[in-house]
Amino acid sequence: MTPNADFERIFHPRRVAILGVSTQDWGFGRGIMDSLLSIGFEGKIYPVNPRGGEIYGHKIYAQVEDIPEDIDFAIIAVAAPLVPAALAACREKGAAGAEILSAGFRELGTQEGMALEEAIKVEAKKGIRVIGPNCFGIYCPKSGLTLLPGPDLSRKTGPVAFLSQSGGMAIDLAFMGMWMGFSFSKVVSFGNGADLREVDFLEYLTQDPETGIIALYIEGIEDGERFIRAVKQAAAKKPVIVYKGGLSESGKRAVASHTASMGGQKEIWEALIKQVGAVQVRSFQELCHTIQAFSMLPPRTYRGMTVLGGGGALGVSACDAAEENGLYFPALTGTIYENIYAALPKPGSSAVNPIDVANPFVPPQTLSQVMQEAAKDERVDIQVQITLFYHFKQMVKRLKLGTLKEIVPVDQYVEAAYEAKEKTGKPVVMVLPNCRQESSDLEVEEIVRLARESFHQRGIPVFHNLPDAMQAIRNVSMYYEHKQKTTS
Amino acid sequence: MTPNADFERIFHPRRVAILGVSTQDWGFGRGIMDSLLSIGFEGKIYPVNPRGGEIYGHKIYAQVEDIPEDIDFAIIAVAAPLVPAALAACREKGAAGAEILSAGFRELGTQEGMALEEAIKVEAKKGIRVIGPNCFGIYCPKSGLTLLPGPDLSRKTGPVAFLSQSGGMAIDLAFMGMWMGFSFSKVVSFGNGADLREVDFLEYLTQDPETGIIALYIEGIEDGERFIRAVKQAAAKKPVIVYKGGLSESGKRAVASHTASMGGQKEIWEALIKQVGAVQVRSFQELCHTIQAFSMLPPRTYRGMTVLGGGGALGVSACDAAEENGLYFPALTGTIYENIYAALPKPGSSAVNPIDVANPFVPPQTLSQVMQEAAKDERVDIQVQITLFYHFKQMVKRLKLGTLKEIVPVDQYVEAAYEAKEKTGKPVVMVLPNCRQESSDLEVEEIVRLARESFHQRGIPVFHNLPDAMQAIRNVSMYYEHKQKTTS
Repeated sequence: MTPNADFERIFHPRRVAILGVSTQDWGFGRGIMDSLLSIGFEGKIYPVNPRGGEIYGHKIYAQVEDIPEDIDFAIIAVAAPLVPAALAACREKGAAGAEILSAGFRELGTQEGMALEEAIKVEAKKGIRVIGPNCFGIYCPKSGLTLLPGPDLSRKTGPVAFLSQSGGMAIDLAFMGMWMGFSFSKVVSFGNGADLREVDFLEYLTQDPETGIIALYIEGIEDGERFIRAVKQAAAKKPVIVYKGGLSESGKRAVASHTASMGGQKEIWEALIKQVGAVQVRSFQELCHTIQAFSMLPPRTYRGMTVLGGGGALGVSACDAAEENGLYFPALTGTIYENIYAALPKPGSSAVNPIDVANPFVPPQTLSQVMQEAAKDERVDIQVQITLFYHFKQMVKRLKLGTLKEIVPVDQYVEAAYEAKEKTGKPVVMVLPNCRQESSDLEVEEIVRLARESFHQRGIPVFHNLPDAMQAIRNVSMYYEHKQKTTS
Repeated sequence: MTPNADFERIFHPRRVAILGVSTQDWGFGRGIMDSLLSIGFEGKIYPVNPRGGEIYGHKIYAQVEDIPEDIDFAIIAVAAPLVPAALAACREKGAAGAEILSAGFRELGTQEGMALEEAIKVEAKKGIRVIGPNCFGIYCPKSGLTLLPGPDLSRKTGPVAFLSQSGGMAIDLAFMGMWMGFSFSKVVSFGNGADLREVDFLEYLTQDPETGIIALYIEGIEDGERFIRAVKQAAAKKPVIVYKGGLSESGKRAVASHTASMGGQKEIWEALIKQVGAVQVRSFQELCHTIQAFSMLPPRTYRGMTVLGGGGALGVSACDAAEENGLYFPALTGTIYENIYAALPKPGSSAVNPIDVANPFVPPQTLSQVMQEAAKDERVDIQVQITLFYHFKQMVKRLKLGTLKEIVPVDQYVEAAYEAKEKTGKPVVMVLPNCRQESSDLEVEEIVRLARESFHQRGIPVFHNLPDAMQAIRNVSMYYEHKQKTTS
């Protein structure tokens, strides 16, 4: 019988030992200590290394036993063969859990690696719950625990939890959140998952009041039935987004050498995930966009939409992308049509929906009026605005108007879209493509990023392009549609 | 009988009249004159406006008739009702063709608009070939003709021709080429296509020795049979990439108000395009990536590939994305496997393929050796390297090493990949994701862009992410596979 995990002490430890901190090289132990100090971990840190010494003003203890008080959590970065004994020492020192950053276990496929991983399991059963090995550990913005390569992650907390068999994907998603406008309750890179795995954390996060959205990257599952049951229970309470890697034939082989898991049958997986009401995504990009949309859009189904922007082909592309994703554009008619038409520059505009505003310099206030008018059509659930900031570069150059930053009315765009969203109760989504990405165009990129950050602060999600936006909206809608059906 | 078009005089005019250049406002006429001067158009420019005067040191002629010599080409930017007479005057002045930037014709759906467009057709039949109306015109880097919003497009010529019913997409693609590493022979935004349309240009470009790749964005076709025949003939000689907008139901409506064309049945279109050996793409993004891949990859089929990069999940994702696109990863074995394994850091790496190099700081020379070794497997047709430059930001900060630009060995990466490509004869494709896109991370973006530009100079295409790369490689491969089948 494995004891229950004390997740409170694991995610918010007050006393942490780091095993394998060297003053002489830049290994994982030193790396994670740097990261914890840099992010501002709230608890006490006890570095451990048989050579002793001092680092960053902290005494290095020769062994865990020498630490003057009990610990809550351990971070283990010693060579693989030393890990089981280290784990035992931490358990005896009172640790509720340990993350093992070291690699060299089951993923090697060797007898020795297998045996070492078994030894970890044996220790775990005695009472210290294990994250890893072969992982980047836990990122918890509230306590200041962070991933191995996460010294400059944000301390801002948010509703997103991410469980990842891959350390690389855990750190990548944590970075993505910083500019895509979502923050985290907990991120767990669990690597080989010798003890605690996706399903354990999933069960915990289902009950965790700080977690509103659960995302998973999994390569393989040990107990399929328990996992599907856990996903079903979680999805009944909050959105669950599943990215399953290794569903292809060569993907299965890659999974085997990455985290030593078994892949699965693509069709079976996807059917099961859908059936239990979770959202299945097929790429890291889709995972990110979908989390972003869940973080910012009201919890509803979305079918009818408007799109407005300068350029008729954008509207055409929007329609095609929408229809592939089960969304549609109701044709605007009557006074709504007439009022929108009256507000737009002529010739070159179209008020039918997609709404072609004819050029990229239509004032933000006009765009807001158009959206407020369009929202009166009750078939419209959500509105997408495409703004092409890169066209300002030419205008600025041509009219010798100063810098791009001085000229582009970013704040007006943000307030106008926010007004449309607030007054109508219907969400607004921005698409800010950037077609000018030469190294000499960095000032365009800067404008796009500053605008994106402001939109996000106002709860308006920003996407690079239409297909990404449509896919994300579709995923949110599908989740709530399934929920409606199963609860009614 | 419409006369043949003198495309030489249309694309490389020596004397151009611009009708509708005002000294008082910033309309299309003034805009295109600015653009031509800015890009450095090689021929003479004769601005025309009944008010006369002077602009940028050029005399403004009150009417076309007053221009002291015959003209080759005219750019018409006067109000729609004045266009037919303007066109007649230009024809009498010897112009082989004219682009009509003005809107206000058939796309309005009004009787007047229809009648004006008919009048254009009547004039065209008398001997002046028309591009437009409702378009951005021609971009021809060789002669210096440029699109209405194209003052800072490149004068560099290249093999890509783009025919676009949408002006917005024409300018967007022209911008994309500047950083995606491809250049143009001719870009034509033909708008409503009252006279010359996609099919006319397609027939011309099939024979044009300066054009090696033809891309099209079309919303509707007038003569389907002739178009499909033209695509077939073109695709037999050079790659043809077709992006058909408006294949969805609401897309058809958007097409009607954008360029007044009829949409089409999605399934029929896609089957036909495939059957005649052209490449069908489904988004602007795919269009760009596919052109990029055709520009830089050797003309072959691609099936077996390697991927190498730091991070096991990247390899897993690569496999999944590859398999969706008909590509696969042969498992490396024997001495090839052993030599690669010996070169990689341990533990954490994997040499099976996908090749996991364990961390993002493996020296470029090692990566090059690995690729040279992997290329010995005859099943390997192409190699993809993923490099995560954003991880250098932390390293630089942590080790207090100076600026990112000083530290990231971009040149070494480029030379290493180039060496692998040249020595093996097998192309290398780079994927440079950027997970850090806050406004405070612009220095990371700069490194990515500088690296991208260097890779492109060495003929190595760079993509943002794996799915884009796989899709682009697949499209290139499908084209040559079809060609092999039909010519053998």
